[in-house]
Amino acid sequence: MSVDRAKIQWNGWGWAAAKDELASREELWLWLADELGMPSLLATPARPLEEIALPAPRLSAAQRENFVSLLGADRVRDDKFERTFHALGRSYHDVLRLRAGNISAAPDAVLYPRGTEEVLSILSTAAENNIAVVPYGGGTSVVGGVSANGASFPAVVTVDLSGMDRLIDVDAVSGTATAEAGIYGPALEKALQAKGVTLGHFPQSFEFSTLGGWIAHRGAGQNSVLYGRADDWLVSARLATPRGLLATEEFPASAAGPRLTDVIAGSEGAFGIVTEATFRIHPAPAASHYGGYLFHDFASGAAAIRQAVQEDVSAAMLRLSDIEETRFYRAFGHVGKRRGISGKLEDAYLSARGFSGAMTAMIAGFEGSKEIVDYGRKRFAAIAKRHGGMSVGAGPGERWREGRFHGPYLREPMMNRAVGVDTLETAVRWSKVDALYAAVKTALKNAILGTAPRPGAHGIVMCHISHAYEDGASLYFTCIFPRALDGEIAQWQAIKKAASDAIATNGGTISHHHGVGEDHLPWMTNEKGALGIDVLRAIKMSLDPKGIMNPGKLIPL
Amino acid sequence: MSVDRAKIQWNGWGWAAAKDELASREELWLWLADELGMPSLLATPARPLEEIALPAPRLSAAQRENFVSLLGADRVRDDKFERTFHALGRSYHDVLRLRAGNISAAPDAVLYPRGTEEVLSILSTAAENNIAVVPYGGGTSVVGGVSANGASFPAVVTVDLSGMDRLIDVDAVSGTATAEAGIYGPALEKALQAKGVTLGHFPQSFEFSTLGGWIAHRGAGQNSVLYGRADDWLVSARLATPRGLLATEEFPASAAGPRLTDVIAGSEGAFGIVTEATFRIHPAPAASHYGGYLFHDFASGAAAIRQAVQEDVSAAMLRLSDIEETRFYRAFGHVGKRRGISGKLEDAYLSARGFSGAMTAMIAGFEGSKEIVDYGRKRFAAIAKRHGGMSVGAGPGERWREGRFHGPYLREPMMNRAVGVDTLETAVRWSKVDALYAAVKTALKNAILGTAPRPGAHGIVMCHISHAYEDGASLYFTCIFPRALDGEIAQWQAIKKAASDAIATNGGTISHHHGVGEDHLPWMTNEKGALGIDVLRAIKMSLDPKGIMNPGKLIPL
Repeated sequence: MSVDRAKIQWNGWGWAAAKDELASREELWLWLADELGMPSLLATPARPLEEIALPAPRLSAAQRENFVSLLGADRVRDDKFERTFHALGRSYHDVLRLRAGNISAAPDAVLYPRGTEEVLSILSTAAENNIAVVPYGGGTSVVGGVSANGASFPAVVTVDLSGMDRLIDVDAVSGTATAEAGIYGPALEKALQAKGVTLGHFPQSFEFSTLGGWIAHRGAGQNSVLYGRADDWLVSARLATPRGLLATEEFPASAAGPRLTDVIAGSEGAFGIVTEATFRIHPAPAASHYGGYLFHDFASGAAAIRQAVQEDVSAAMLRLSDIEETRFYRAFGHVGKRRGISGKLEDAYLSARGFSGAMTAMIAGFEGSKEIVDYGRKRFAAIAKRHGGMSVGAGPGERWREGRFHGPYLREPMMNRAVGVDTLETAVRWSKVDALYAAVKTALKNAILGTAPRPGAHGIVMCHISHAYEDGASLYFTCIFPRALDGEIAQWQAIKKAASDAIATNGGTISHHHGVGEDHLPWMTNEKGALGIDVLRAIKMSLDPKGIMNPGKLIPL
Repeated sequence: MSVDRAKIQWNGWGWAAAKDELASREELWLWLADELGMPSLLATPARPLEEIALPAPRLSAAQRENFVSLLGADRVRDDKFERTFHALGRSYHDVLRLRAGNISAAPDAVLYPRGTEEVLSILSTAAENNIAVVPYGGGTSVVGGVSANGASFPAVVTVDLSGMDRLIDVDAVSGTATAEAGIYGPALEKALQAKGVTLGHFPQSFEFSTLGGWIAHRGAGQNSVLYGRADDWLVSARLATPRGLLATEEFPASAAGPRLTDVIAGSEGAFGIVTEATFRIHPAPAASHYGGYLFHDFASGAAAIRQAVQEDVSAAMLRLSDIEETRFYRAFGHVGKRRGISGKLEDAYLSARGFSGAMTAMIAGFEGSKEIVDYGRKRFAAIAKRHGGMSVGAGPGERWREGRFHGPYLREPMMNRAVGVDTLETAVRWSKVDALYAAVKTALKNAILGTAPRPGAHGIVMCHISHAYEDGASLYFTCIFPRALDGEIAQWQAIKKAASDAIATNGGTISHHHGVGEDHLPWMTNEKGALGIDVLRAIKMSLDPKGIMNPGKLIPL
């Protein structure tokens, strides 16, 4: 298969061989303890795999043999590493449990099909035997989307699509391509860019997530302003279901009833498994520019983004950190390092321009032909200026770009030091951005205070606008908090609930690009309405009458 | 209600008081007879309403009284005019039957609700009594979408939404507005433009179609390249169903499962009745320019459109007529008129530029700020030139714009002269445009030949690219043919089937913006797949368990 699972961390993010570069930066940890109101940060290492016990596999010998006869012995795995690796996704909630060895459920086998026909055979065998099926792409879900949740079934198998990683076709005339769903981000972009084209879908999980996963959870890449979300760029999907193959429409547009492709985007494996997809591609950009801007506050930066998208300025990305996030990341980069003369000059310059204290940082990215990049930059610069923004050149943009997939790697070092990190996101119309922003920040801060391990301890709650639309924006919240080591799951649940309730009461969606999984299920009925949930359930039952597909995710039962 | 039904033609298109301006142009009819290979064109007037018999109303006195107690007597209509007016839509197939007085089914009553609550009450009363319900906006369906098809029910009522025509809210910050679904195009744009904004949805039916109808049949306006299709600009809908109200998501984007709004766009009243909708709006354009281009052939004009949309040139509309359509409309405009010196100079100029014989005409429209219009025009001009296109200035564009809603008015004059006119459209990816174009034209020509009333008679089959997307285009076919007066329905069916089969076998959708209705039902299973139809049926049954909503449309049973 394309990516050897043994090379990826089974209980955290990224390559198993990746070094913890922060471990030795002692000044950093002292500073962070101070930021969190803690006297010091305890070492809290993860338990090694050897110490962890899994529930015994539940597949009968005959059932296991069925799958072996379908796929061959080497593509039916039930060793401890495979079962543990696939037990959960990679959310904070998941990683807490993985690191503690608190794994109550794991797949009874992990299956590695090659091709749609094999997936269909797996699903019909599973349906006959009432075995639950968990589809698995890169396993990077941060919402409990791939938990091996099969408690109400005799057994559960995880279907790992990583053996289905071919680029099948590029239709350059129509600007579309077709690939198998298990292809990872880097392999897909490499194959496409070899033909001079790009999908342009770069989520932060890009290194470890797959085409099928992006579609199944309705994801958005960092450059979605230009290239669109998964539900925008998806042209057609092949969905293997327990009732057979559903191949959706392939038209550029149609008035022939609701578009089934739209029903598959966001279906999270609950209707079936996306095995192949056709998607829009674009010429690989001849030029690009990612530049930094500073604004005096969040509202003026947000207003600049709003004006730019509503006037259809051809940006690829417009990302605005709030005051806390801007301050935190500047400090985080500087702690324990000598700033030197250039740093002092920089501070003096910013101060002279009125940016001495609180400020918000924006990255504005442009891609395409040189002409389009230049024109977009020029138009955006004028808009930024109108809202009090100051360009700080290409440096911050290039640094952001180099580290664009690096964020999740910061979580483990913190978790090794008794610090929790979680992120959540929503989208809301522009007229509700201010109220939602304030409410969610307050809810997060209060929930962290309420669950802090000692008096005086508190969290850091940051936010950025991550994606923008004509009618609204995505707000992405990051919180860093001292872990309540004697009740970590309850702490996470309290924080999650506070934020989610604040999102729901302020008109936001429970997820902008992470998906629903298990974690957001309690907010789905409020979001879709009881009748809306009935509609989703009816769709599921029409394709998966026994309800074996990814149970416990997406749809409240 | 907003538009008095008595002022609209009950058996054709447009205002009842509209004059037939072509009736007296005898040279035109001689020319057209010649074009169709007919010695002459017979007068074939429509039958007046007085001569037409309708089936007797089937509502029981108690059922009728139920509706009267809900709505009041003046909003429960069952006089002959109301029942006939609402019996069918306005397709060629419908108008053939209306003009002949061949009306086998009509609503047993026409109900005029005001507000979502009244619609919900109507639906629950109808469900209790097993009465079929046909939702009706402007009634302009050209695919049998509003036929009073209730043969398998004890009775059928048509719910005419024209009394629900309020603009409810404009959220200028978010660029969205909310209105009741029964508002007509002109009233909606007038109310929006009074606030400086536009929806920008201008289908050819604009004068007589409604917001709810556009959503229900997933329509596209002429400027959809800029403003999007109904399924693009629809943010949220309120759908009254027999099981209650489904209010869909209101977010700019979401990863919280499939988007229910997408399921409602294109639902054609089969799931419920759209009563209100929130949609994206834009500043009313400060500038606009609609210009004409000539290309040497269809392929080079299509290539220019393709490049423009794939390079995201900010056009509002790019419309390319094929050689036959270009020739026909030029001749149609000139027949019996002296061209004079300026006409001769024009011909000489075109000839000198290499456009003496076959050519294709394009209208390229731009809207927005002056800067954006200028920039779009400049970019498109360069692309057009690369493909051999020649600008012919703003004249043709302005003429097209003045007559943009006039096309359907030409049908009745022709039908009064034994000439049939029908249109159909599809969308297909760019790499399949050439093959589909050729196949559908051949199929239409052959079907017309095969059903022509006499040897030597034949049709005129024209096509234009009406809407363009990054990955494909809509092809809109018009055919004009001598009617087989002794078998008109069979003639229409043969022509329709030939074109539809050719579309399906060449990778096109059965409809790009007209919808499914009754007429496209036979092609739906091929297009959506048997499992896909199961999904649509499951959605319907979850909202409309008795199947009373718009029976016989959209979903094959």
